[in-house]
Amino acid sequence: MEIITGGICAVEGVLASGSRKGKYGVTVIFSKESTASAVLTSNRVVAAPVILTKEIVKDRRMSAIVANSGNANCFTGEEGLEDAKLMAKKVAAKLNIKTEDVAVASTGIIGRKMPMDIIGSLIDESIETLENSPEASFKAAEAIMTTDTYSKEISIQTTLTDGKLVKIGGIIKGSGMIAPNMGTMLCFITTDVNASGEDLNEALKRAVSKSFNMVVVDGDESTNDTVILMSSGKSGKIDEKFMEALDFVCVELAKMMARDGEGATKYMEVTVNGAASKEDAKRAAKAVTGSSLVKTALFGADPNWGRVAAAVGYSGAHIDEKKMGITFESENKTVEIVKKGLVMAAEKSRELETAEKIMKENEIKIIVNLNLGEYSATAYGCDLSYDYVKINSEYST
Amino acid sequence: MEIITGGICAVEGVLASGSRKGKYGVTVIFSKESTASAVLTSNRVVAAPVILTKEIVKDRRMSAIVANSGNANCFTGEEGLEDAKLMAKKVAAKLNIKTEDVAVASTGIIGRKMPMDIIGSLIDESIETLENSPEASFKAAEAIMTTDTYSKEISIQTTLTDGKLVKIGGIIKGSGMIAPNMGTMLCFITTDVNASGEDLNEALKRAVSKSFNMVVVDGDESTNDTVILMSSGKSGKIDEKFMEALDFVCVELAKMMARDGEGATKYMEVTVNGAASKEDAKRAAKAVTGSSLVKTALFGADPNWGRVAAAVGYSGAHIDEKKMGITFESENKTVEIVKKGLVMAAEKSRELETAEKIMKENEIKIIVNLNLGEYSATAYGCDLSYDYVKINSEYST
Repeated sequence: MEIITGGICAVEGVLASGSRKGKYGVTVIFSKESTASAVLTSNRVVAAPVILTKEIVKDRRMSAIVANSGNANCFTGEEGLEDAKLMAKKVAAKLNIKTEDVAVASTGIIGRKMPMDIIGSLIDESIETLENSPEASFKAAEAIMTTDTYSKEISIQTTLTDGKLVKIGGIIKGSGMIAPNMGTMLCFITTDVNASGEDLNEALKRAVSKSFNMVVVDGDESTNDTVILMSSGKSGKIDEKFMEALDFVCVELAKMMARDGEGATKYMEVTVNGAASKEDAKRAAKAVTGSSLVKTALFGADPNWGRVAAAVGYSGAHIDEKKMGITFESENKTVEIVKKGLVMAAEKSRELETAEKIMKENEIKIIVNLNLGEYSATAYGCDLSYDYVKINSEYST
Repeated sequence: MEIITGGICAVEGVLASGSRKGKYGVTVIFSKESTASAVLTSNRVVAAPVILTKEIVKDRRMSAIVANSGNANCFTGEEGLEDAKLMAKKVAAKLNIKTEDVAVASTGIIGRKMPMDIIGSLIDESIETLENSPEASFKAAEAIMTTDTYSKEISIQTTLTDGKLVKIGGIIKGSGMIAPNMGTMLCFITTDVNASGEDLNEALKRAVSKSFNMVVVDGDESTNDTVILMSSGKSGKIDEKFMEALDFVCVELAKMMARDGEGATKYMEVTVNGAASKEDAKRAAKAVTGSSLVKTALFGADPNWGRVAAAVGYSGAHIDEKKMGITFESENKTVEIVKKGLVMAAEKSRELETAEKIMKENEIKIIVNLNLGEYSATAYGCDLSYDYVKINSEYST
């Protein structure tokens, strides 16, 4: 497997584009008659485009995606659903495809009527500039940004067991409201693997559970979360190699999202090893990553590992304090702070000094070993800074 | 029922005291041969004093409480447990009571050895100054403070069905790490009701479920949470009147704690009505109160009700978007923002203007009506401010 350029346009035949006007943006992705799968929000308040896309993807066929930023089209009633349908209809007419093959996604503020005149002209503009190029993928990634500070994309290629070269490209936007499952994230992935809708769906669900569902920014879950995978089917047969590559793409996109969490100044990766069950490992990793106290300690470069222990304790995971280990790691340093329940980093110890140095780095790994079983999980997150408060206290004004 | 002065010393025979030195404080409460009950943290990482108090309270008898601030005595192994026992022993010897009748509670940083010399001399000082007076209750409330900005106490009296006058007094400290169940809160309540240990325990559990368990500051749960109720048994028999009064005392203490949440500039009360079950009502109320996005919106005086709807949506409560109602209220204003799924507070509407005014107040009520059933619950919280980040990023340094 290797990383290549091109984003979603690394896959042959995929056309993309994006355009912005003020706080609004529209992205169009065209991959005619693809096999498709989607993972959508589990929030019980569901945005209109999510309701529509859920219908669209049922037959596992899709030709295009239209997405907008600036307005979530959520809590907008029947009119909102009509607006989402109008977006699909407009794209279908222009691209000469079926309306029921166009998925729709939205992100932005909840409860406001869609500015259909602006969105409409942005759709026109996007469709006129569709092309298969790295620049087009970049524009598509940019147009869906909200509070993201940079656009996010990745593309890779890998050789399948049948010898065929398969490509996968993805774009994503975060960046608050990430977790407990997915946050307000829109993620669109293209590939040329040859797979049935069911197999593609299984692969996507697995990848999402390891990646986007393990990102915690602020514990809020959005009404609009959407991950769509489209495949042209022009390359080799889906296999474990493809699934591993898809996992990689999703985890990398998840990490980018965590790094660019709202107001984030630091990136955090929490791995829990030795859990009694997979569920325990996930719970504990997410509890630490999501803890406001761990996040503020990270921001303040405070090696307050007690907050890590406390978060593991309330996560619901089985623990034995006397077996628990906690390690802090940065790129060049590592320190075992707690070893089988014994505190190594006592006041004024060399261990505490190292921990203090690690906490000053920009990328910090926290490794918790429960020493109870064989299960592991990793969660991705960031610190809680003044800027998170600033960004979110000013958002809708 | 009426509010009276005196705090925990409003109850006849209760002696209290507190003393501080730097970041450490010690509180002693003496109520000889009381019936007692305790509700303790459900965190699986448990501080030494909690382990000890759990044993002490098993026989539902207690004569004294000794509590310290500045060090949580958590993740301190066998030595920590010995230190907690030493605290109880010292108090017992000085007061001429049994060691197994002394409960211990601690709050502060996790994973550091207890400074037993300082704590020991503070215990001496406290015991020498024990008395039954409003000032003594105030000193007791002050000595357990950590990041609290003011001490918190209440006392009431009420007439029972049997005509006897019963008194209840309480002191509490918050103020971060409150929720999902209790936070780092220590709460000590005295009364003179005549009750069996079992009845007292039932009354306390009920009161805690309505009050402290409904406070959400940052979603973290402490390793040290302790609520203790001690009764001298000198007044009338426990009945529903007493239980209502105890509920009131606990809810008022819970509100004080929420108002003084770390960095809080605003107080928030979230009531969910019309839920299909009690559990649904609690979940939804706590999800809204705990949402970082709702909390930052509150801080920024942003009437972003969509975040309220989203939090209800991910709470796990059953909802029907078309039936949901959302109302914002302050002392003098009220506005129905969403009525049975219809948005009343559209852009530039008078409703939105009123909502904007309400959000500028210091005490805000959010009322969600699910219109699905008859169950209600109220949760108590505060906003998320720059100061929360400041306080918690500097805590252990």
